[in-house]
Amino acid sequence: MHAYRTHNCAALTKANVGETVRLSGWVHRKRDHGGVLFVDLRDHYGLTQIVADEDSPALPILDGLRVESVVTIDGEVKARAGETVNANLPTGEIEVFARGVEVQSKADELPLPVAGEQEYPEEIRLKYRFVDLRRETMHKNIMLRSQVIASIRRRMTDQGFNEIQTPILAASSPEGARDYLVPSRLHPGSFYALPQAPQMFKQLLMVGGFDRYFQIAPCFRDEDLRADRSPEFYQLDLEMSFVTQEDVFQALEPVLAGVFEEFADGKSVTPAGEFPRIPYKEAMLKYGSDKPDLRNPLLISDVTSHFTKSGFGLFEKIVGSGGVVRVVPAPKTNEKSRKFFDDMNNWARGEGFAGLGYVTRKGGEFGGPIAKNHGPDLMATLYDELGLGDDDGLFFAAGKEKEAAKLAGAARTRVAEELDLIEQGCFKFCWIVDFPMFEYDEEQKKVDFSHNPFSMPQGEMEALETQDPLDILAWQYDIVCNGYELSSGAIRNHKPEIMYKAFEIAGYDNTTVDKEFGGMIEAFKLGAPPHGGSAPGIDRIVMLLADEPNIREVIAFPLNQKAQDLMMGAPSKVSNAQLRDVHIRVVEPPKPAGEQG
Amino acid sequence: MHAYRTHNCAALTKANVGETVRLSGWVHRKRDHGGVLFVDLRDHYGLTQIVADEDSPALPILDGLRVESVVTIDGEVKARAGETVNANLPTGEIEVFARGVEVQSKADELPLPVAGEQEYPEEIRLKYRFVDLRRETMHKNIMLRSQVIASIRRRMTDQGFNEIQTPILAASSPEGARDYLVPSRLHPGSFYALPQAPQMFKQLLMVGGFDRYFQIAPCFRDEDLRADRSPEFYQLDLEMSFVTQEDVFQALEPVLAGVFEEFADGKSVTPAGEFPRIPYKEAMLKYGSDKPDLRNPLLISDVTSHFTKSGFGLFEKIVGSGGVVRVVPAPKTNEKSRKFFDDMNNWARGEGFAGLGYVTRKGGEFGGPIAKNHGPDLMATLYDELGLGDDDGLFFAAGKEKEAAKLAGAARTRVAEELDLIEQGCFKFCWIVDFPMFEYDEEQKKVDFSHNPFSMPQGEMEALETQDPLDILAWQYDIVCNGYELSSGAIRNHKPEIMYKAFEIAGYDNTTVDKEFGGMIEAFKLGAPPHGGSAPGIDRIVMLLADEPNIREVIAFPLNQKAQDLMMGAPSKVSNAQLRDVHIRVVEPPKPAGEQG
Repeated sequence: MHAYRTHNCAALTKANVGETVRLSGWVHRKRDHGGVLFVDLRDHYGLTQIVADEDSPALPILDGLRVESVVTIDGEVKARAGETVNANLPTGEIEVFARGVEVQSKADELPLPVAGEQEYPEEIRLKYRFVDLRRETMHKNIMLRSQVIASIRRRMTDQGFNEIQTPILAASSPEGARDYLVPSRLHPGSFYALPQAPQMFKQLLMVGGFDRYFQIAPCFRDEDLRADRSPEFYQLDLEMSFVTQEDVFQALEPVLAGVFEEFADGKSVTPAGEFPRIPYKEAMLKYGSDKPDLRNPLLISDVTSHFTKSGFGLFEKIVGSGGVVRVVPAPKTNEKSRKFFDDMNNWARGEGFAGLGYVTRKGGEFGGPIAKNHGPDLMATLYDELGLGDDDGLFFAAGKEKEAAKLAGAARTRVAEELDLIEQGCFKFCWIVDFPMFEYDEEQKKVDFSHNPFSMPQGEMEALETQDPLDILAWQYDIVCNGYELSSGAIRNHKPEIMYKAFEIAGYDNTTVDKEFGGMIEAFKLGAPPHGGSAPGIDRIVMLLADEPNIREVIAFPLNQKAQDLMMGAPSKVSNAQLRDVHIRVVEPPKPAGEQG
Repeated sequence: MHAYRTHNCAALTKANVGETVRLSGWVHRKRDHGGVLFVDLRDHYGLTQIVADEDSPALPILDGLRVESVVTIDGEVKARAGETVNANLPTGEIEVFARGVEVQSKADELPLPVAGEQEYPEEIRLKYRFVDLRRETMHKNIMLRSQVIASIRRRMTDQGFNEIQTPILAASSPEGARDYLVPSRLHPGSFYALPQAPQMFKQLLMVGGFDRYFQIAPCFRDEDLRADRSPEFYQLDLEMSFVTQEDVFQALEPVLAGVFEEFADGKSVTPAGEFPRIPYKEAMLKYGSDKPDLRNPLLISDVTSHFTKSGFGLFEKIVGSGGVVRVVPAPKTNEKSRKFFDDMNNWARGEGFAGLGYVTRKGGEFGGPIAKNHGPDLMATLYDELGLGDDDGLFFAAGKEKEAAKLAGAARTRVAEELDLIEQGCFKFCWIVDFPMFEYDEEQKKVDFSHNPFSMPQGEMEALETQDPLDILAWQYDIVCNGYELSSGAIRNHKPEIMYKAFEIAGYDNTTVDKEFGGMIEAFKLGAPPHGGSAPGIDRIVMLLADEPNIREVIAFPLNQKAQDLMMGAPSKVSNAQLRDVHIRVVEPPKPAGEQG
C-alpha cells in the first residue's frame, strides 16, 4: 500500500464500499457527536468524511489534533445512511471508518481559519498566504488562473503560435511607466530594467523571421498600486507577421471567446467571429467611452441640432459656441420620483461636471425645466426621433464635445446601474478600431500623436502626404470586455520612411527620431516584415472569470498594496557586501521637517 | 486576395500548379542566369523558388534589391522541369513565376550573412540578433526550444500537474549564489531579489494545499558566466504532495523520456520506468562521479585488496595508509603504443593528479612497471577477477578514496573518448540516489550536511537518534543524462522536530535554526504535508537535444558572457532621477592604482 494514500479525498464513491483505503489530508473540520468523532479530511481534490468511534485507535489521536493538522488515515469505506448522504459532495455517499491514523504534521493554533472562509484582514491573509491559499475561494481562483493560462496556451499553439521567452533582465527605456532597476555587478554604474512589456523583443522576433509569436509574459511596472494593479503582472503577448488588422482579430477572437466559454460557468460569451468592431469616434458618441460595456443597453445620442435655436437658453448658448448636447435615455422612469433625477444631477456635480440636465415623462407628459423651456412639442419631436416612449426620461450632457461625451458616458453607466438594466450572466466583447493617428494638443498648440507613434497610419505614406493629419486614422485597436480594456494592439509601422514622416508631422526631426528610436529603425532597415499584435492582460481575464475586483485574489503570492511580500519579507534590507558587489549605496530620503532631530 | 499571402513559403506543391498565388518573405538568395532571375523566397515556414524572366515586371525590382529585403510576390505556380526538382525541399517540385512584386522592406547592407550560415563572431551575432535569428540553425534551435517547452507543459498537465506562477520580485536569501537586487521605491533602503529558484514558494504551495505544482520558471543567478550558464535561465520546477521518492521518479520519467523521444531525432532514449537508480556510493565507485555518462561502457573497479601486499611498493604503501586502488580498463589496446599510455599519465598530471599508473597487455603478456613489480601471476588473478582479456590494458588510480575516485572517473571518460567507446545516438538517463545526509568536514573537524539540509533523512527521526550520522542517507536524488546533471531533487523535511534534530547533529542550535529558517519552520507548524520534487534545467535539456554546447545558442535574446545585451544595450546608465526614485547612488569602484590621476 502506498505510504500516504490509495485514493485522494474526492475519489471514493459507493462503488468503493467495503474497501480498505488510505487517505491523507488536512483536518478541515471536526465534529464530536458524543463518543463518535467526524472529521472532514481535505486535500487538493476534495473532502471525505472520516468517522472514528470509541473502538477506533484513531479516536484519541484525532481528538487531540487541531484542525489543519495533516494526517494519514487507514480505514474502511462504508455507505452513509440515507439521511446522512451529502448530495453536494462527490464523496457524499460514503464515509471512511478510521482504523488507524498517522500524524504527518501537527498544526499549531491558526492565524486565520480555513473552513468557513470568514472575511479576514488582507494583511493577515497575505502574511500567512500558505494558510489563506487553502481556503476554498482562493484555491478555486488559483486553479482557475492555472487552467485559464493552460487553455490560452493550448489555443495559441493549436493556431500555430510558438511561445518564445524574451529577457527579464532587459534594458531601461525612457518612455512609459517607471522601470524596476537591477544594478549590474560586472558593469559598475549600469542597470538592467525589468521589462514593462516585451514590445521591442516581440517586434524584433518578427524582424528575426518568426511568424506567430506568443508568450504568457511577466511584465513589471513600478507604479502606485490600486486594487486592479500589481507591480508584476502577466499578459498574453502576441505578434504576427504578414498580417492585416483583420488577421489579428481572426486569430485572437477564437482564443478569447474560447477561453471565456470554457470557464464562463454558464454565462454567455460573444461568439468568435462576431465581436463588434466599433470605430473610436462612434464609441465616444454612442457610449461616451472607448471602453464601452455592451451589457448596458442604453445608447447615447447627439441632439445638438435640436438646440441651435431653443427656449432653453443654456443649451442654445452652448451649441452656439461650438458645444454639443448628448442624451442618455432613462427608460420606464415614469414611476421614479423627482429625487431620482436630482440625485443624478448631484452625482454628476460630485464627479466634477457642471451638471446633468433631465427631462421626465409620465404618460406622455414632460416635466422639468429643459422640457418646459424647450417646449413640449419640440421635445416630442426629439423623443420621436430617438424612438423614446411616453414613460421614458432623458438625461442631458451639454458642453464641449470631449467633456459632454465623458459625462454622457458616465451617466450611461450610472443610469443603467440605477435602473438595473445591465445584463447579467454574459461577457460581451468588442473591438474599438480606427483610433485617430494624431490629435491637436491644446496646451502645446500643435499636432501630436494621439496614442502610439509606432502604429501604422491607415493609407500609409500617401495618407501622411495628402490628408489633414487630424483625419488620419491608425491601424490601432483595443479589445474590450464588459467595459474593461483587456489590451490595446496595432499593426506596427515597419517602414522607416513612414516613421520619419509621421514624426515630422508631430514636430520631431529625423535626428531626434534616430536618437530616441534608432535601435528599432536600424532593425527595420535590415529587412522587416509587416507585422502587428496585441497583449491581453491575463490577470484581468482571470479577474473577470473569477468575478473578483481585486487582482490579489487571483495571484498565488501577490505583493500587497504597498508592494510588500508580507510572507517572505520582501523588500528587505540587504548586507553592505551585497550593495558593494553591485556598486551602489543607499541614500535615505530626507525626513519630513517635523521629524528632523 | 490577402494583402500579403495566399500561402506560406513551405506550402506549395505540384498540386498547386497553375494557381495564381501571393507569397511574402525575405529574399534569401538571388541567382542571375542571364536574363532570368531566381530568388529563394524565405519565411518562417520554408523556401520557395521565385523566377522572374525578362517579361516579368518584377525582374528589375527584384534585381535592384539586396538579399534579406522583404517582398510580396504575385505569381503563377509552375512545375519544375525534371532535372531541376529539389527533393530536399517540400516546395522543390514547383517554382513561382513572378508577375508582380511589392517591396515591403528594403534591406541595407547586412552586418552578417543569413544564407549559408558562415561562422561569425558572437559579438556581431548578438548585436544583430534579429538578423542572426533568421539563420537556419538559430531558427531551428529557438523553435526546438519552444516545442520542447510546449511538450513538457502538455506532459505535465496531462499528469495532473498545475502550473502556478511564483513571484519574480522576491526576497533576498542569504544562502546560495549571488542575488540580483531590485531597489524598492516605496521602501527606501530595501531591496527585492530576483529568485534563484522558486524553492520556498513551491514548498509553500504544498503547505497551501496544492498537490502537483509545476512551472517553467525563470531563475536568476548573478554568477560569473560560462558557456553553459546564463544569468537568466529556466527550470521545470515541480513539487508534489503526499509522495515518496518513487512517486517523483514515476512522475518525471515519462515526461523526460517522452520529451526526449519526441525530439531526439532518431536517437534512442532510456524508456520511462527503466531509468537506472544508482546509489551515490556505487556511482562514485563505478563511475568516479555522481554524474555518470552511461553511454560510456567502461566501469571502474576497486582492487585495493590486491595490493595490501604487493611487489609494487607505492600501492602497498597507499593501501597501508588507508588509501584505495581503483582501475579503469582499456579494452583492446594491444595495438596501442607506449605513448598512448604515457600520454594518459601526463594528462592526469596536467589535471593536478599525482599520476595514472597502467598495465599493458598484448596477447596475454603484461607490460609496464606495475605489472612487473606486482608480478604477472598476481596480475593475471586480478585480470581474471575483473573479467579482462589478453589484449586489454588497465589504468590505475591510487590514493585517498575521494581523490582516487575522482581521478578514476576522469580517466574513465578520457579512456573511452580516446578509444572511441562512447555510444553515439542515444540519451541515457539515470537517477543517483541515497546521497549521504552528513559528511565529515575535514577542515572544521565536525559533521556537517553533505548536500541539502532540508532533505528528509531516510529513517526520519529514528535514524537521526540511533544511527552514526555518517551512515544516514537522505531522500535526495539527481537526474542525470549523458553525464549532465539535469537537476537535483529531494523529499523535503516537513517536520520541524526532525529539522531541529538534523541541524543539531550538524552543530546548529534551535535559536540559529529559527533565525535562519524561521519562515519555513513556522509554515511547517501550521499543517504541512509530506512533499518532494525536482527542477530539471530547461536550457540544458534543449542544449542536449539541439546538440549545442553553448547555452546562448538555445536562447532567443541571451546576454553575452559579460552579461550584456549588445542589441538593446543592457545594462545601461540610467538617469539620476531614476536612481533618486529608488533611493540609491552609484559608488564607482576605486580605479586600479596605475590609472589613478
